[in-house]
Amino acid sequence: MHVNITPIQSCIMVLASEINSPLESSQFDLSAYLTQRQTLVEQALDASLPLTYPEKIYEAMRYSLLAGGKRLRPILCLATCELVGGTVEMAMPTACALEMIHTMSLIHDDLPAMDNDDYRRGKLTNHKVYGEDIAILAGDGLLSYAFEFVATQTLNVPAHQVLQVIARLGRAVGAAGLVGGQVVDLDSEGLTDVSEETLTFIHTHKTGALLEACVVCGAILGGADETEIERLSRYARNIGLAFQIVDDILDITATQEELGKTAGKDLTAQKVTYPSLWGIEESKRQAQQLIAEAKAELSHYGDRAIPLLAIADFITNRTH
Amino acid sequence: MHVNITPIQSCIMVLASEINSPLESSQFDLSAYLTQRQTLVEQALDASLPLTYPEKIYEAMRYSLLAGGKRLRPILCLATCELVGGTVEMAMPTACALEMIHTMSLIHDDLPAMDNDDYRRGKLTNHKVYGEDIAILAGDGLLSYAFEFVATQTLNVPAHQVLQVIARLGRAVGAAGLVGGQVVDLDSEGLTDVSEETLTFIHTHKTGALLEACVVCGAILGGADETEIERLSRYARNIGLAFQIVDDILDITATQEELGKTAGKDLTAQKVTYPSLWGIEESKRQAQQLIAEAKAELSHYGDRAIPLLAIADFITNRTH
Repeated sequence: MHVNITPIQSCIMVLASEINSPLESSQFDLSAYLTQRQTLVEQALDASLPLTYPEKIYEAMRYSLLAGGKRLRPILCLATCELVGGTVEMAMPTACALEMIHTMSLIHDDLPAMDNDDYRRGKLTNHKVYGEDIAILAGDGLLSYAFEFVATQTLNVPAHQVLQVIARLGRAVGAAGLVGGQVVDLDSEGLTDVSEETLTFIHTHKTGALLEACVVCGAILGGADETEIERLSRYARNIGLAFQIVDDILDITATQEELGKTAGKDLTAQKVTYPSLWGIEESKRQAQQLIAEAKAELSHYGDRAIPLLAIADFITNRTH
Repeated sequence: MHVNITPIQSCIMVLASEINSPLESSQFDLSAYLTQRQTLVEQALDASLPLTYPEKIYEAMRYSLLAGGKRLRPILCLATCELVGGTVEMAMPTACALEMIHTMSLIHDDLPAMDNDDYRRGKLTNHKVYGEDIAILAGDGLLSYAFEFVATQTLNVPAHQVLQVIARLGRAVGAAGLVGGQVVDLDSEGLTDVSEETLTFIHTHKTGALLEACVVCGAILGGADETEIERLSRYARNIGLAFQIVDDILDITATQEELGKTAGKDLTAQKVTYPSLWGIEESKRQAQQLIAEAKAELSHYGDRAIPLLAIADFITNRTH
């Protein structure tokens, strides 16, 4: 669609050229890999959203978009694209869009009418800094920009694949995904008899759908076929649910300093969680089982799957 | 991208087959044309968003999406697509998406943290019925679904054109469009010395950008070239600004019953408007001048431009 390369695209290309291919098993250093990818994503995100008039809204969008975090979603997207034979350049605009969408969901989730949170990633939440009105609009701005960004910035990928990515992103964040999960979560607030089925619906939609989209979109951009996409979806669904179980466990066992957000919120709110249904030990076992199943899906990729295998392990082993 | 036709797509095709081509000048009945198109759009919108679990969010989205209104945005999109040689079927998913985006902006705009409105189109606003949390999420759901809907439901249009449409939609609603206009509008609240330049920025972004997208997206879907798109953009920008001037005039001269929303709000809020800058008579003259310029852009289309010409006139002559 674009004959000319935009400044953002050339920036992505320069950044991506600094990356090495995944290393062999014996040498692979996950921590170095994640740091390298995180830096790359931070730079691409910073370049994606220049400050312009009216500055206030761009400042508010950038405040939350560039507030740090592990950047696990974009990294998953990039890694999956490479796994199936694509490049970092192909996936970077979508990787950024996934983080824009994730950030939008956090901004809106933190609003007084929703979770009413004052801190996020160790910083004041968007509405505490910019006011509720701007926070609502910053979320809307990030959400719409995510789609625009994928549509205008993706290079060297056939247009029909980019359309598939946009369809998956839209579905992941809408009522069939994240928003639907949020609604059931809100409905379950204050209830002490939430079923395991409902809890799983909440998590597979509220956090799982977007994590799955990270992997699936990376796969589509890299040119994966239907069978591969299905296999990688299963990997993503398993690590997504494990991620949430670990989140629930950390809410109980980690400190506020470690989390960068209010700790023990679930307990205080008497919220039904996996640990409250299963106990902490069984929750850990379930998370490990899910991770093992996720890794099994990647068996036939050999050494190329090392980053995604390591990320799966990282999810259960993380402390914040 | 899709080999199989979805139920929504076949519904659009059946509905569209009931439409006649634009009539010749001597016979053209705008009122009948608008009613016919409005009915078609209502049916397509109704079919676009079936009720499913979790029902509450779909009900909230449908409540505002199907709350009536003139459906001017989708009608503009369909009419422009036909003008440049496309069909109603090609443009209907985008026409629906434009209404989803417009509805999202109304839901979020009505929130207590924004304009704090209790009524919209003669009905209680979304948050008054479903609560603020659900209203925020219903807006997010409609916005993301709009992009998904265009990406998955558009038929018989090359994928790179659909991508261009998505890029235009994203830009129209984000910080470079509607959201940016909202921010400057919020910043100007309570100020009595807002300049004409700022007022025009607000309107060309808050309402103009999406109206322009209606026309431009219809043109892209129908296969218009760059020159045509530019010409039709100018038509759209002119009717967009005229539309807003007329809105400001009606806020002063129309009754609440006619408007279906609180009347005289601008005066009560001592808001700077075109009538407050120019007076009512000069505002009317400016609106008519803009409409004349808009119509001049369509001169070489001959009779095929009759619907868009009539819509331009309709904007200045409307009473609500």
